[in-house]
Amino acid sequence: MSTYADRLKALREQLKTDQLDGFVIPLTDEHMSEYVGTYAQRLAWLTGFQGSAGSAVVLPEEAAIFVDGRYTLQVRQQVDGDNWSYQSVPETSVTQWLEEHAPNGARIGYDPWLHTRDWVKRAKEGLASRGAELIPVAQNPIDKIWNDRPEASKARLVVQSDEHAGKSAAEKRTEIGDWLGQHHADAAVLSALDSIAWAFNVRGADVSRTPVALAYAIVHADGTAELFVAPEKIGPDVQQHLGNGVRVHDRTAFEGVLSELKDKTVVVDPERAVSAIFDALEKAGAKVLPLRDPTILPKAIKNPAEIAGQKAAQERDGAAIARFLHWIDEEAPKGEVDELTASDKLEAMRRESAELRDLSFDSISGAGPNGAIVHYKSSEKTNRKLESGTLYLIDSGGQYVDGTTDITRTVPIGEPTDEMRDRFTRVLKGHIAIATAVFPKGTRGSQLDSFARRPLWEAGLDYAHGTGHGVGSFLSVHEGPQRISPVGSAQSGGDEPLQPGMILSNEPGYYKTGEYGIRIENLVLVVPREIEGAEKEMLGFETLTFAPIDRRLIDAEMLDPEELIWLNCYHAHVLAKIGPTLSGADLDWLRQACAPVLTD
Amino acid sequence: MSTYADRLKALREQLKTDQLDGFVIPLTDEHMSEYVGTYAQRLAWLTGFQGSAGSAVVLPEEAAIFVDGRYTLQVRQQVDGDNWSYQSVPETSVTQWLEEHAPNGARIGYDPWLHTRDWVKRAKEGLASRGAELIPVAQNPIDKIWNDRPEASKARLVVQSDEHAGKSAAEKRTEIGDWLGQHHADAAVLSALDSIAWAFNVRGADVSRTPVALAYAIVHADGTAELFVAPEKIGPDVQQHLGNGVRVHDRTAFEGVLSELKDKTVVVDPERAVSAIFDALEKAGAKVLPLRDPTILPKAIKNPAEIAGQKAAQERDGAAIARFLHWIDEEAPKGEVDELTASDKLEAMRRESAELRDLSFDSISGAGPNGAIVHYKSSEKTNRKLESGTLYLIDSGGQYVDGTTDITRTVPIGEPTDEMRDRFTRVLKGHIAIATAVFPKGTRGSQLDSFARRPLWEAGLDYAHGTGHGVGSFLSVHEGPQRISPVGSAQSGGDEPLQPGMILSNEPGYYKTGEYGIRIENLVLVVPREIEGAEKEMLGFETLTFAPIDRRLIDAEMLDPEELIWLNCYHAHVLAKIGPTLSGADLDWLRQACAPVLTD
Repeated sequence: MSTYADRLKALREQLKTDQLDGFVIPLTDEHMSEYVGTYAQRLAWLTGFQGSAGSAVVLPEEAAIFVDGRYTLQVRQQVDGDNWSYQSVPETSVTQWLEEHAPNGARIGYDPWLHTRDWVKRAKEGLASRGAELIPVAQNPIDKIWNDRPEASKARLVVQSDEHAGKSAAEKRTEIGDWLGQHHADAAVLSALDSIAWAFNVRGADVSRTPVALAYAIVHADGTAELFVAPEKIGPDVQQHLGNGVRVHDRTAFEGVLSELKDKTVVVDPERAVSAIFDALEKAGAKVLPLRDPTILPKAIKNPAEIAGQKAAQERDGAAIARFLHWIDEEAPKGEVDELTASDKLEAMRRESAELRDLSFDSISGAGPNGAIVHYKSSEKTNRKLESGTLYLIDSGGQYVDGTTDITRTVPIGEPTDEMRDRFTRVLKGHIAIATAVFPKGTRGSQLDSFARRPLWEAGLDYAHGTGHGVGSFLSVHEGPQRISPVGSAQSGGDEPLQPGMILSNEPGYYKTGEYGIRIENLVLVVPREIEGAEKEMLGFETLTFAPIDRRLIDAEMLDPEELIWLNCYHAHVLAKIGPTLSGADLDWLRQACAPVLTD
Repeated sequence: MSTYADRLKALREQLKTDQLDGFVIPLTDEHMSEYVGTYAQRLAWLTGFQGSAGSAVVLPEEAAIFVDGRYTLQVRQQVDGDNWSYQSVPETSVTQWLEEHAPNGARIGYDPWLHTRDWVKRAKEGLASRGAELIPVAQNPIDKIWNDRPEASKARLVVQSDEHAGKSAAEKRTEIGDWLGQHHADAAVLSALDSIAWAFNVRGADVSRTPVALAYAIVHADGTAELFVAPEKIGPDVQQHLGNGVRVHDRTAFEGVLSELKDKTVVVDPERAVSAIFDALEKAGAKVLPLRDPTILPKAIKNPAEIAGQKAAQERDGAAIARFLHWIDEEAPKGEVDELTASDKLEAMRRESAELRDLSFDSISGAGPNGAIVHYKSSEKTNRKLESGTLYLIDSGGQYVDGTTDITRTVPIGEPTDEMRDRFTRVLKGHIAIATAVFPKGTRGSQLDSFARRPLWEAGLDYAHGTGHGVGSFLSVHEGPQRISPVGSAQSGGDEPLQPGMILSNEPGYYKTGEYGIRIENLVLVVPREIEGAEKEMLGFETLTFAPIDRRLIDAEMLDPEELIWLNCYHAHVLAKIGPTLSGADLDWLRQACAPVLTD
């Protein structure tokens, strides 16, 4: 196995052969995915960086890796500082750095299948000011030198039944066709993997934790479609499910078919489609209409079958969580439970459900100070025991055939301090403020975000992440376009008004570096709220997640009467929904964990 | 006097002479002012429209007037529908309408001194798609036919003393010069009237209700400046105050001096400077650096002298308001007080202060259903008596030499209904939620806005305006860049993070069309908040306005304990600050009005 230094050297030699002076390596795939298959993990292969967001630039004499604040420490542990300079985004961007470091007249390569057109435009302009050029490559130079590169997954597609999807794929295609008609367009390119999975009612296993298959699609105004996917992945059941309205091509045929769309008006989503797709269409003489992928909003607004599936999945998931929390209460005091055994135990309990297909993300199992690392991933190296006097934070979820879950609970090991109880209760007050919010139709998540922070702000505290993200239906655990986050993100394009049927997380937190982390996360559904005398159409949230919120961490005196009522009603619901699926000591534990919290 | 139909006909003839097929008439002046002098009220002269925002387009065969939702009714009352078609913004914009209605190949005129460069760019592009042209005019064609056009005001400038300004004009210019140095720029053009008044520590009387003088300025990197203002407005005192560092030119010399800036790097604010300024600089061969007017932020962040002045002004203003509210309580039940006599009475009481220079805007004096019209201006035609069983809303303010005030109070005439008390108490809860908010440095007003709405949202209610606007120091009553408004406005550029020293209004409301309006408005100052154990620099608000909030409209049972404490503390402060300036029956009334509100 080659060293990272060897790989960097090999890349520089390859660039020379390819007549390039530099190359940009992002962490994404041809679908602008958040999580990518091993075959596409070029940044990790080249540099050793294991984080979930970053990019790198290699020049003849220097090389830089770009990560955000979450990975400042991690990048220094994983990537060799002798060969790589560490750069922080957003303070420095790849294009800014290139502007300053690219040799005059340099030819900087990029893979047009891994960048948005907007990025290419900005980078080109930046380099032009240095007299340098940005050159698209026909084949990624890393792929030429990566000898043991994993093959793309060959996992077969599976049909997502109409019962779970709530709408047939043919109906969905007809609706996309109608939408194209309204926009006087002939076709839409779908390149986001979850959009394709949703539109065709299929699921895959090509990406860890997200049930999608590597594919592209073109949907026509008449409701027929082209689906581009490796043919060996399509069994007879899927072939029959797709039907005559869908023409299946090999994934490699995609670019060729794009080039046949001469004179057609084709919708492409500039945020979700890579530059190469625009290039191919423009070269072909198609008219590109830059609009949002038409599946985004209908995918976000869950239909009754998807909502019913989500609720069924939540009952299973809540039962596994309850049994796990009981197990922690029994075992942790003995002193032998650590982060990895705990998350393995939870996974095993979830896997007892026949409907579970995968976890929805790698569990964040953080003991003591590790709980304060927001995107923590435990490893043999960092693994800690759950020690008395600390908090344990577990953020996890399941991919069930009928719904995707995501839940965080924080529990005390032994006796918590007064400060821990104060902080936990503030986080809980914020959580309740979101859970009980009522707001007019048209309100955006960014207008609600501060409700979750106010109890922390009052103590001079805050948390450095958003309050909620959208969640898919047996799809991505992070799904847009809705979210609950501060206005900062709204300024980069705006967040979507909340609509009934959208599912989001409600997850305020508090993190004391080096000591402990707290997060309370439930999923919530946007629902209409009937209010007598209302002058506007009002919306609110229905909480979907059912598992106890640890009573030992709650200072009841800090809760308003309405907050206490919410908490006790919530626990009554947990007992009613989860209790019937438990028995014996687990059920006794749940009764205790759901007992009403009272003030003195 | 000519009719509006005559004027439209005369304009069309003038356009023919000027070889134009159309002309665009905005409601602004050469300084992009919110309120404009009578000499610049071309839209009102041409159409009869008296609202504060709108524009018009005249073509050979048709003419359209564009207003927003506030003026939908008013425009139909004031502007003749036979000659003008009514258009609603933002649904239709002037440029969209022109794209659809301008004859192919048409030459559409615009006055480059009345539009931003961004507007010109968009309109040009829109017209180009029709094969039509947008043509800058050398003289506004309306000015050629407006025979009895008022002359621009000749009011003299007055010096704003260093004692009130808190910083000498020379210091301010030095700071602008340093800022220019940091940006490698040679000069900054100031064209916003309040920016010029602030930078030179002068005030004027050319615009009703806003103490500014018609002027332009250029500040150089060395801290010297050119001030362009009609010479007859500068008396010896102002001449001496300005000193040797400021070269005074006639206002008409501005364009000529711009054209001498060849090869200079000149800062111009694209949101605040008109297109003609950019044109002149570019023609001259200057390098234009589009940046925000460098006075905007220091003007918004009040210094200790400005804060002290604001507080002194508030005590005077609160005393006038208290005496007025007492008078209303005495007189309104007799049945003879109407909107106009009430606002006249309040003005007279304010004018008893030697420090008052003007009102800060035309009072909104709304009885019963008129109170529900957010931008109501009472007239002989609409004037109503304050009748028993109704609410009376009075939104008013003063321009004192040391500070600008803005306050709204809502009072019951006779016995209020339970619904009125419910709605008023919800508005009060929202007001208190802003007054007591604590938030980390970097927070924007849009992140706080929903705090004010939540108590209304819970009843299915809302209000269709922002929660707060910035306020100047003896300057504009509406001053940016800070505000407290929903995310919608943040999306058109973002609102400014709140900083200590900024002054804003806190004015939630509720409006029941055809019945009553409620608004509770105080001014607040952004201040640091010391919190024990805080992990971040925290900010909050100090309320600056002192006048009773009507106890008869408060349902104490709806207030949380903390809200009751705030209310009673607030009233204790009102009594302590205002009481000493009152005597006799007024003082007795104030004591009663400030008595603690208690729950049963």
